Amino acid sequence: MTVSFDLTATDGRARTGVIHTPRGEIRTPAFMPVGTAATVKAMMPDSVAATGADIVLGNTYHLMLRPTAERIATLGGLHNFMNWTGPILTDSGGFQVMSLAGLRKLTEEGVTFKSHIDGSRHSLTPERSMEIQALLGSDIVMCFDECPALPADRTRIAQSMEMSMRWAARSKAAFADRPGHALFGIQQGGLEQDLRAQSAQALRDIEFDGYAVGGLAVGEGQAAMFDCLDYAPDQLPKDKPRYLMGVGKPDDIVGAVARGIDMMDCVLPSRSGRTGQVFTRRGVLNIKNARHIDDPRPLDEDCGCPACRSYSRAYLHHVYRSQEIISSMLLTWHNLHYYQELMAGMRAAIAAGAFGPWQADFHSNRAQGDIDPL
Amino acid sequence: MTVSFDLTATDGRARTGVIHTPRGEIRTPAFMPVGTAATVKAMMPDSVAATGADIVLGNTYHLMLRPTAERIATLGGLHNFMNWTGPILTDSGGFQVMSLAGLRKLTEEGVTFKSHIDGSRHSLTPERSMEIQALLGSDIVMCFDECPALPADRTRIAQSMEMSMRWAARSKAAFADRPGHALFGIQQGGLEQDLRAQSAQALRDIEFDGYAVGGLAVGEGQAAMFDCLDYAPDQLPKDKPRYLMGVGKPDDIVGAVARGIDMMDCVLPSRSGRTGQVFTRRGVLNIKNARHIDDPRPLDEDCGCPACRSYSRAYLHHVYRSQEIISSMLLTWHNLHYYQELMAGMRAAIAAGAFGPWQADFHSNRAQGDIDPL
Repeated sequence: MTVSFDLTATDGRARTGVIHTPRGEIRTPAFMPVGTAATVKAMMPDSVAATGADIVLGNTYHLMLRPTAERIATLGGLHNFMNWTGPILTDSGGFQVMSLAGLRKLTEEGVTFKSHIDGSRHSLTPERSMEIQALLGSDIVMCFDECPALPADRTRIAQSMEMSMRWAARSKAAFADRPGHALFGIQQGGLEQDLRAQSAQALRDIEFDGYAVGGLAVGEGQAAMFDCLDYAPDQLPKDKPRYLMGVGKPDDIVGAVARGIDMMDCVLPSRSGRTGQVFTRRGVLNIKNARHIDDPRPLDEDCGCPACRSYSRAYLHHVYRSQEIISSMLLTWHNLHYYQELMAGMRAAIAAGAFGPWQADFHSNRAQGDIDPL
Repeated sequence: MTVSFDLTATDGRARTGVIHTPRGEIRTPAFMPVGTAATVKAMMPDSVAATGADIVLGNTYHLMLRPTAERIATLGGLHNFMNWTGPILTDSGGFQVMSLAGLRKLTEEGVTFKSHIDGSRHSLTPERSMEIQALLGSDIVMCFDECPALPADRTRIAQSMEMSMRWAARSKAAFADRPGHALFGIQQGGLEQDLRAQSAQALRDIEFDGYAVGGLAVGEGQAAMFDCLDYAPDQLPKDKPRYLMGVGKPDDIVGAVARGIDMMDCVLPSRSGRTGQVFTRRGVLNIKNARHIDDPRPLDEDCGCPACRSYSRAYLHHVYRSQEIISSMLLTWHNLHYYQELMAGMRAAIAAGAFGPWQADFHSNRAQGDIDPL
């Protein structure tokens, strides 16, 4: 069985569909929780699935350093290792290695860098990234690319994009054509429409199973990102999934889906769960605020997650203040549940041809802000 | 409905039975996980129940300081607050206040002390302890007592025990006789058999729903504790539950049950879960040891907990080393599951009149030590 994509409905530029993989279906638009080090932090895998997630993301950079890809392969692959039976997408390691700044050295061949854990020397190339992602057993493999931090001048962005396209060709050549595993290309080009078009054409020439819009959500701001998304997804093939990497806040996600994006990932819901930031239909609240100390109400009356079904804001405030682990467990669960309900709501609205009114509701609910204190 | 105890079988001095409460049955011998600050650390309440725990313990000292007993009462009581529907036993706060040493002042009336959280001044007396435990809605309330650290001289132990007996009478007088709620007395007297007998008689004269053996597991060592348990439980009424406070390691628990103890509590399985110490049938192992890094085997092949069913030692080693929250979640679950299986095994063996052979198996399994490295 191969990985395939069925586009089942569109509403304006927004799309809904299903990615079929041997490990299960991925309903799109899809949000992928991040499981950096072989765990979605503070969550059991069955709880991640219970929130409605069809797929999780693993980080090549972290896993290659600890416990190592070779070790995970010997232990039966990443799915078996972390007890996640659904599909897994792995990034290429490129983005995180580039973030190491002073610790890495970049050439046409690839990148050499020092581990942030123990300072040991490692290298990543398109070929090595493909090898690692194969050892992990990733269902959706990402090309190895370079992503320059923004702002950067046009020359730097063009040179970087052109090297990433040469790396994309090397990635494709190195990707073992294993049935049931997909390889996604990554479009670069910063905020330059013509460079994005050149990048898209280069990727189309190589041919991939899906296409990511890379190089966004790196500090350019939502308006600039949306400007780019007004043209970038349309430069990519219609009949393949489009993945916006590392995005984002709920309104980023809604805006991206409205512009034709099918897949996203972000640490925000899980990281926020550990720092007390909570996403609800009515926006963001911070559970550490004293206003919650006596509040018997749930975070969100209409939410069906365990944190909302069984606990008061007062309890969640108490366990956050007391630095209890259950605080991270419950708030992460809630945030991931909220994100998945957001995606399910968009999928249903797009299928019904009602994504416009759905977006209006989304924004007006958020504009209300949190419920009034008692 | 009142709280009652049915002793269903004995085998030597070991006993098995059921404590009936309006919130559910407590099968004895029972191990009570500790939920200090309204959470059994790193566990969801339904997971605690899934390990086989019938009852959890809450700490008056911690809860009175944060979030406060009055706040919990307003929020519907501790069960509702922490989402635990089964019975809850609360300690009196005495033991933890006494541990504050320099921060507290002891008189016949009670104890004044400074909060370890913010330095604010508080007091605990038998009357205030009863009030707090009623506000929490505790099913099994403990008398307020003093527990001197061992070693202490006989005069100090006798004086302390006598004051604790006066406090026991004040606790009984202050305990509102609420149907379905039980009050347990606490025997003191250190390692002095005659003082233990005097204390037991004083408690029997007052009459309680159950009796704790207090003042043990405070540094005297297992041999001294077992010497005391060779006579202390028999000094207490046969037809009421006997509770050994703050015990202990698996072999402490087995030795205590063999000497007629019905209930125990300890932070050890949950605290060890967070520090990588794992209890199995074959003794103790430490998951942080390098020997586990490539080991595909579960902690214990015969254990049915999620950590053993779905994860390798290699994974548990990896997430412990990576300081991932799931490490605490899985190892705590395993340890609590192991403790509850230990209790279930003893209950079945006592009921079958086979507790002697069961103990021999228990000790010979542990004597093997952990499985050999691969």
